[in-house]
Amino acid sequence: MTPEEFRTAGHVLIDWIADHRSRIPELPVASQVKPGEVAAGLSAAAPERPEPFEAVLSDLERVVVPGVTQTQSPNFYGWFPSNAALASVLGDLASSGIAALGITWASAPALTEVEEVVTEWLRELTGLPAGWRGAIQDTASSACLVALLAARERASGISQNRGGLQGEPAALTVYTSPQAHSSVRKAALLAGFGADNLRQVAVDPVTYAMRPEALAEAMGADAAAGRRPAAVVVAVGTTGTTAIDPLAQLVPIAAQYGAWVHVDAAMAGSALLLPERRWMIDGLDGADSLSWNPHKWLGTILDCSLLYVRDPGELISVMSTNPSYLRSAADGEVTQYKDWGIPLGRRFRALKLWFHLRLDGVEAIRARLRRDLANAAWLGEQVAAAPGWRLVAPVSLQTVCVRHEPADLVGPDGSNGDDGVEDGEALDRHTLAWVAAVNDSGRAFVTPSLLDGRWMVRISIGAESTERRHVAALWALVRAEAERRT
Amino acid sequence: MTPEEFRTAGHVLIDWIADHRSRIPELPVASQVKPGEVAAGLSAAAPERPEPFEAVLSDLERVVVPGVTQTQSPNFYGWFPSNAALASVLGDLASSGIAALGITWASAPALTEVEEVVTEWLRELTGLPAGWRGAIQDTASSACLVALLAARERASGISQNRGGLQGEPAALTVYTSPQAHSSVRKAALLAGFGADNLRQVAVDPVTYAMRPEALAEAMGADAAAGRRPAAVVVAVGTTGTTAIDPLAQLVPIAAQYGAWVHVDAAMAGSALLLPERRWMIDGLDGADSLSWNPHKWLGTILDCSLLYVRDPGELISVMSTNPSYLRSAADGEVTQYKDWGIPLGRRFRALKLWFHLRLDGVEAIRARLRRDLANAAWLGEQVAAAPGWRLVAPVSLQTVCVRHEPADLVGPDGSNGDDGVEDGEALDRHTLAWVAAVNDSGRAFVTPSLLDGRWMVRISIGAESTERRHVAALWALVRAEAERRT
Repeated sequence: MTPEEFRTAGHVLIDWIADHRSRIPELPVASQVKPGEVAAGLSAAAPERPEPFEAVLSDLERVVVPGVTQTQSPNFYGWFPSNAALASVLGDLASSGIAALGITWASAPALTEVEEVVTEWLRELTGLPAGWRGAIQDTASSACLVALLAARERASGISQNRGGLQGEPAALTVYTSPQAHSSVRKAALLAGFGADNLRQVAVDPVTYAMRPEALAEAMGADAAAGRRPAAVVVAVGTTGTTAIDPLAQLVPIAAQYGAWVHVDAAMAGSALLLPERRWMIDGLDGADSLSWNPHKWLGTILDCSLLYVRDPGELISVMSTNPSYLRSAADGEVTQYKDWGIPLGRRFRALKLWFHLRLDGVEAIRARLRRDLANAAWLGEQVAAAPGWRLVAPVSLQTVCVRHEPADLVGPDGSNGDDGVEDGEALDRHTLAWVAAVNDSGRAFVTPSLLDGRWMVRISIGAESTERRHVAALWALVRAEAERRT
Repeated sequence: MTPEEFRTAGHVLIDWIADHRSRIPELPVASQVKPGEVAAGLSAAAPERPEPFEAVLSDLERVVVPGVTQTQSPNFYGWFPSNAALASVLGDLASSGIAALGITWASAPALTEVEEVVTEWLRELTGLPAGWRGAIQDTASSACLVALLAARERASGISQNRGGLQGEPAALTVYTSPQAHSSVRKAALLAGFGADNLRQVAVDPVTYAMRPEALAEAMGADAAAGRRPAAVVVAVGTTGTTAIDPLAQLVPIAAQYGAWVHVDAAMAGSALLLPERRWMIDGLDGADSLSWNPHKWLGTILDCSLLYVRDPGELISVMSTNPSYLRSAADGEVTQYKDWGIPLGRRFRALKLWFHLRLDGVEAIRARLRRDLANAAWLGEQVAAAPGWRLVAPVSLQTVCVRHEPADLVGPDGSNGDDGVEDGEALDRHTLAWVAAVNDSGRAFVTPSLLDGRWMVRISIGAESTERRHVAALWALVRAEAERRT
C-alpha cells in the first residue's frame, strides 16, 4: 500500500471509527455471538490478490463489531473499566505511522526518552517516591512476573548465573492473599517457585485485605523451617472487591526477611492521580516495585501497564543481554529498556500515554475519576438502603459488590450463620439467573464473581462515558431483573 | 476527546503519516541525536489543561522524528528488516478504534476467532504441519520463554504444581548454538534453568549451523551424568549470519530424550511463504513449537510474533488460570488465548495481520520477498568478486555478511592462519571505522557484529522500499568508505 492509498483509506477509517464510537451506546454491551460464529463469517484462506479496502471495512462492520463486548459503552460495568480514550488512539496511530523499532536506545532514542519523560510525569502525578523509575510493560501479568523473577534472583544471590533454581539448597517462598489476581499465582508458577511454595495469606473477613499478623506468622513459620521468604505481592485494589492490603503494615514484616515487595495496583493505580487517595500506598518507600495499568480506568488504550521500581539495577542484573549486534557508542549513558523486561523489541507505547495526557489534560482526567468514585459511593448507598440487597464488601474504590438476598433464600439477617444464608445453592442460582438476564438484555454488562464460596455481582463503574444517569438506570435494571424473580 | 474532535485530529494525523512516509527516503537513516537530547526537548511535567493537537504534532515533528532510526527507509540495512506496511497500520488503527478487551473468548469473541482464522491462514501459507495451531505473541523473546517454560514443565512432570524447579532431583538442561539470538539465553535463565545448565552446541565453521553430532554428544554426556535434557532451541536463520540449523537431523536426537524442540525462525519465517524455501523446516513434524515474526521482513507492524505449537494442551497445562470472574457459558467450547502465553489482557493484534494480508495480497508479498533474496544474492556476488572483500558467511537468506580485508591488514589468503588475518585488532578498527562513516553519513545504516571474535558487517536487505538500485548505491557507498581508508 502506497502512502497515497493509505491516505485515502485512512480518512475513511478515521470517519468509521468516529461514527462507531458515537453509536456504541446503542449497541448491545455484551457480544451476543455464539462460539464459531465469527470464524464462520470469514474467508478460510488468505487472498492472493489485494482486496478493496471497502471489502475489509464491510467485514469489520458485519462480523467483527458484533463479536466484541463493548467496553466503551456507558453501560459497561464488567471486569474492570477498559477505557480507550480517543486521544490515546491517536498516539498509538502516531506510533504506528512513525514505526520506530524499540530494541536499544540507538534504534530509536525518542522511544526510550519519551518513555522516560512520560513515566516520570506519571511518577510525580501519582505520588510515587522520588527516584523510582518506570517502564511500560504490556500487562500487570507480565509486570508481576518480572518482579517475581527479580525477587527470585535477589533471594538466591542471582542463581540464574549458576545452576538456577535447580541448584538451590533451600526453598524460596512467595506470599500473597487468596484475593490476589490469578496472574500472581501464574507468575509465581512460571517463575519456578512451585505451588507448594506459594502461600495464601489470610484476609480480614470484612475488608478482604491481607492480615499483617497472618503474613508475619506465615513468613516466620517458613523461615523457622529453613525456607527463604523471597517475595510478597501486595494487592492495592483486589480484583474481586478492590480490597486494599495494608501496605505500610506489611512492608516491615517483609523487610525482616529481605523479601521483595511488589505492589499490584493494576486497577487502583489510576486513583493515585487523586491526592486524597495517596494513603493507599503509604509505606511504598520500603517496597521494591509497583505496577498499575493506565489501560484500565485511566483510559490509555491497551496494552499499557506501568512497572515502577525502586532500583532498576535489580531488574537489569536479571534481564540484561549485550550481544555484539546491539552495542552502540551511547551504551552506558542511556537507558536500555530491553533490560527492564522480557521482550527485546518494543513498540513506541509511550506516545499513547503522552498524547492522552496532553490532549485530555490531567485536570479533566482527575474530574472523571472523582465522578466515578462518587457514583460508586452513591450506588453503594442505594444498595445498602434497598430491602433484600446487601453490599458484600466495602466500596473502597469504584466497584460495588452486591447480592440480592430475598427473604425466601435467606433467613432474618444473621439468624442462620454468619451471612444469614439458608440455602446457598438456591441463592447462587438466583444470582446467576439475574446476572444472565441483565447481560443477555444487551442493556448493561456486569460480572459475577465468587466471594467466600458464593456468587456475588461486581458492578465496576468507570467507563469514560458513564454518568450518574447511567448508573441509576443500571441500578433500576438490576433491581427489576433480580426482584421479579422472587 | 469526543468522536468529532477525534475525527478532525485524526484526518490531520493520517495526512501527516502519509506525508511522513513519503519523505522517509530523504531523512537520515540513523538517528543523529545525542543521549538526553530528546528528553531535553520535552516538557518536564504533564499539562493540567488540554493542549491543542497542533502542539503535540509539532513536538512529534520537532523532537520525535529526528530521534528515530528510519527502519522504513530504502537505505536501512541494519539488524533485521522491521517493516511496518501501511495496510497493517490501518489494521492496528481499526483495533484501537474498536478497543476490544482480549481477556477471554467472551470478552471479545472476534478477537479470538479472527486470530484463529488468520494464524490458520499463515500456517497454511508457510507450510507448517496440519494440526499445528498458532497464537500471536509480542516478540520472539516471549515466544521462546513460553516454549522453554512448557519444556521445563514437560521434563519435570509439571513440577510447578508441586515444589517447582526447587524440588527437582536432577538438573534439567537446555541446548542451543552460540549463534542463537541473545533472547534464547535470556529465556533459559528467566525460566530458571541456570547458566550452568545451558549448553552452547558447537557450530560448523563454514555455515555456522549447529552440528548434529555435537548436539548428540552434549545430550548424551548430560544424560550419562544424570541430568535431564529438557529442550533444544533450533535457529532457522541465526541473527548473526542467518545460518540455518539442520532441523531434520537435530529432531531425532532430541527425540531420544523427549526434549522439547523449539524452532526460532524469527527472521526466516517470512521466507516460508515461498514454497522453494520450505526445506528450511524439513523435520518440523517432530518438533514442538516454532515462532516467527511477521513484524520483521513480512512487514506486519510491531509487535506481532507468531508462536505455533504441535499440542496447545502442553501450553495450556502450564499457563492456564480459571478465576471465577473470567468464567462464561462458552468455556470448554472455545479457545482461551490467555492460556497460551504470559499476559492476560491482549490487544486485537490479529486485525493488523488480517488487514495486511487482505489489502496487500499474498502474491505481492511473495514477489517482494523473492526480490530481496535476489538482491542479496546479487550483492553476495559483488562482494565475492571485489578485491579485498570477503563474504564471511554463506548468503543463506537476505543478509550479506561482509568484511573489507585490505592487503596491509591481512596476508595472502590463508597464509597466516585459517582466515588469513595478520593483525586482528587493526582489522577490527578498520571495520568499525568504515561502518561508523557509513552510518554517520545518514545515507545508509548497517550493523557491525562479532563473528569468531572479529567484527564483520551485516547488510540485511529487505526494507519494503529497497530496490536493486538502492542496494547498488549501498554497495558503492560501503566500498568508497572502506577503500578510501586504506
